[in-house]
Amino acid sequence: MYDIVKDAVEARDFRKVKEIFSKLEEADIADLMQGFHDNKEVDTKDITLLFRLLPKDTAAEVFTYMESDMKELLINSFTDTELEEVIDNLFIDDTVDLIEEMPANVVQRILDASDPQSRRQINMILKYPEDSAGSMMTTEFIYMKRHMSVGETLQKIRSLGMVKETVYTIYITEADRKLIGVLSILDLLTSDDDEELGNIMDPNVITVETTEDREVVASQFAKYDYVALPVVDNENRIVGIVTFDDAMDVIEEEVTEDFAHMAAVEPSEESYFKTPVFIHAKNRIMWLLVLMLSSTISSVIIGHYEAAFATVPLLVASIPTLTGTGGNCGSQTSTMVIRGMSLGEIELKDFFKVIFKEFRISVIVAIILGAVNFARICIQYHSDPQVTKLAICVSLAIVAAVIMSKLIGCILPMAAKAVKIDPALMAAPFISTIVDASTTLVFFNIALLVFHIRI
Amino acid sequence: MYDIVKDAVEARDFRKVKEIFSKLEEADIADLMQGFHDNKEVDTKDITLLFRLLPKDTAAEVFTYMESDMKELLINSFTDTELEEVIDNLFIDDTVDLIEEMPANVVQRILDASDPQSRRQINMILKYPEDSAGSMMTTEFIYMKRHMSVGETLQKIRSLGMVKETVYTIYITEADRKLIGVLSILDLLTSDDDEELGNIMDPNVITVETTEDREVVASQFAKYDYVALPVVDNENRIVGIVTFDDAMDVIEEEVTEDFAHMAAVEPSEESYFKTPVFIHAKNRIMWLLVLMLSSTISSVIIGHYEAAFATVPLLVASIPTLTGTGGNCGSQTSTMVIRGMSLGEIELKDFFKVIFKEFRISVIVAIILGAVNFARICIQYHSDPQVTKLAICVSLAIVAAVIMSKLIGCILPMAAKAVKIDPALMAAPFISTIVDASTTLVFFNIALLVFHIRI
Repeated sequence: MYDIVKDAVEARDFRKVKEIFSKLEEADIADLMQGFHDNKEVDTKDITLLFRLLPKDTAAEVFTYMESDMKELLINSFTDTELEEVIDNLFIDDTVDLIEEMPANVVQRILDASDPQSRRQINMILKYPEDSAGSMMTTEFIYMKRHMSVGETLQKIRSLGMVKETVYTIYITEADRKLIGVLSILDLLTSDDDEELGNIMDPNVITVETTEDREVVASQFAKYDYVALPVVDNENRIVGIVTFDDAMDVIEEEVTEDFAHMAAVEPSEESYFKTPVFIHAKNRIMWLLVLMLSSTISSVIIGHYEAAFATVPLLVASIPTLTGTGGNCGSQTSTMVIRGMSLGEIELKDFFKVIFKEFRISVIVAIILGAVNFARICIQYHSDPQVTKLAICVSLAIVAAVIMSKLIGCILPMAAKAVKIDPALMAAPFISTIVDASTTLVFFNIALLVFHIRI
Repeated sequence: MYDIVKDAVEARDFRKVKEIFSKLEEADIADLMQGFHDNKEVDTKDITLLFRLLPKDTAAEVFTYMESDMKELLINSFTDTELEEVIDNLFIDDTVDLIEEMPANVVQRILDASDPQSRRQINMILKYPEDSAGSMMTTEFIYMKRHMSVGETLQKIRSLGMVKETVYTIYITEADRKLIGVLSILDLLTSDDDEELGNIMDPNVITVETTEDREVVASQFAKYDYVALPVVDNENRIVGIVTFDDAMDVIEEEVTEDFAHMAAVEPSEESYFKTPVFIHAKNRIMWLLVLMLSSTISSVIIGHYEAAFATVPLLVASIPTLTGTGGNCGSQTSTMVIRGMSLGEIELKDFFKVIFKEFRISVIVAIILGAVNFARICIQYHSDPQVTKLAICVSLAIVAAVIMSKLIGCILPMAAKAVKIDPALMAAPFISTIVDASTTLVFFNIALLVFHIRI
């Protein structure tokens, strides 16, 4: 498909392109044009031309599926009239997203191209804090008064030509837009024409407040399986709705942020390839520096016990096994706890329950790992006269490392949550650094005892 | 709310419970009862009693929101008639999920309680491979012939009393259920009564095949923002639909699986607290053992260079810094690549593009880390006569470790994907183990050169 369109563009056969476009989904047309741009295979002017081939209502939707750089490029090539047409066909929440992405001079053109009513709504949404329900809602929804009849409502929907995002649920309000119930389109369709909406509506409504965190909003979707949630102000007046596709986007973004934090990377707004090398390096270097410098603690500890490994050099060879195993145990636990918290399975009040559970797990794991390690050392160094002492020493240290690291791995993320730091920041790399230091400390102290070394 | 209901149950005031239930969402009622059960605060018999207080249509929905153990408990306490009522009100896909969760004796009771038509559909869905589109679809959807009029269709919807999951989109078929178009309820409502469906339908339909992987299906939802996707067989006959809420569940499960794999844990089907301590330990021990035993390679390498650190004991103190930094760099890259692949941003054909990008990032990062580390050692060990040599040696090793680990961190997950292993398995812990060994090897070889040591 990609190559067919490319060839058609090169042959200037725009009739063919138009025909192909008419059979594609909007998201796919956007993908196609984005690809042409990213791979620099089609001239910028021709891409603008391709966009102009689209029917007006399709164009706006294709536009929303594009990435920021393409959007900016297109807006800059639009005449004022063209821009107005696109903006006119965008949903309010998409216009707001656009404004948040674009540089200041482009924003001014977008606002100029919006009609006064939309501009008022855009400004209202922009005023809500970033990451709040208010900032992710759309103001396009259907609300009706409770005393309207089913027939009148159907008539009104028919005459207004509603947009698809909003038509599945009708919000029932009384004076001042106060939300008193919801009605699915199904109930509307299967009721008698002269029934009043107030009698068939569901008076139990799940709402979110404008100030609610968008992560909480997204989790409500996962819980209740709704297509849309109404957003209300503090006096229960409906001001907008959040739709499930925006909730899916938030879930995806939040998860991506968690992944990044857990790998000690500052999250990036853009995709992997769109982020320049320097920004990638900048997002990664800070944490690497912190972790590298904090590993100095381990090196000081090791330096302190020089006498120990000068006497028994084989002790050194066991350091990677100990710190590696401790790090892995810690990362297992912290990941389970962090994921459990973001799914809402683990809450702060479960603090001691989690610690007790991880303690029991760590004891089982520690005993098995200690025993296997004991056997491994006995086999590997069987010719060494001090093999038994070494095996005892390393295995005891493994047991201690496993239990310590599993406890640290559950305490730190929960403590972070308690003081409102992102628990994902307390993941594997951070915990490994702490576990490395404490494991070496415990290890050499056990060694001093077992081998009767004095320092 | 929780305590009010609990008190009411203890006071045997079931009228009050019933009143509270009537104001709650089904998901919340299920949560409440699950809580009573999990905390053993309410007797099992009383929980069954609570369930019987629910109106029949609510009961089935509450049932679907419960966890397996509660479902099993309830089914065992149901009479055959009660079971039939619940099963009757379940959507086919929920019944299938139930059958997949329950032990064999319970499954037989469920199948007996289903009417013959549902049983046929259940058996059909059960035949599709696990994790395929066929296994996650529901067979309850609306399809109409192309020559029907809008008015007839509205009439039919009204008389059938459609279920909410399916009413938003109408699928248009010709003979043999062959799918030829879709029509949103919006277009239906805003069209003239005597218009033919074939004239107003959208003939471009995005479909998924029954055999398609459920992860691919979920990504289609994220891409196209649809409420439902039709599932077709290999002759384009519509056999079911997948709804967005099931797609959201799949995304959540897949992400949880990725998190688990990346922390070297076998994923669990149940939530954190529902999984017993022994299962948690079992899910974690295997990888820990493999990684612990493979760290023997590092210990052999270190043992081999005993002469080096016997001459310059300070070398040992730098091992944690080196392996730690290498591990963190590797985990940053592998996480970015794994996440990029699961979002579809990075594909296999980008192999060399990714390697080149990570190489450039790693050079920037390596130079900064090497320089800072050089300074750190000069300050920390300024009194040692060999401080410059040590600083050169460790910093060069850092540079090598960063570049190596970033390259390993992008090559391994992509290679895993190429041979159809879950890339998430090639994450931090696995990469650290490889990086640890290669870093120590490089480090000691640099040391031999710089300090002119012979082994």
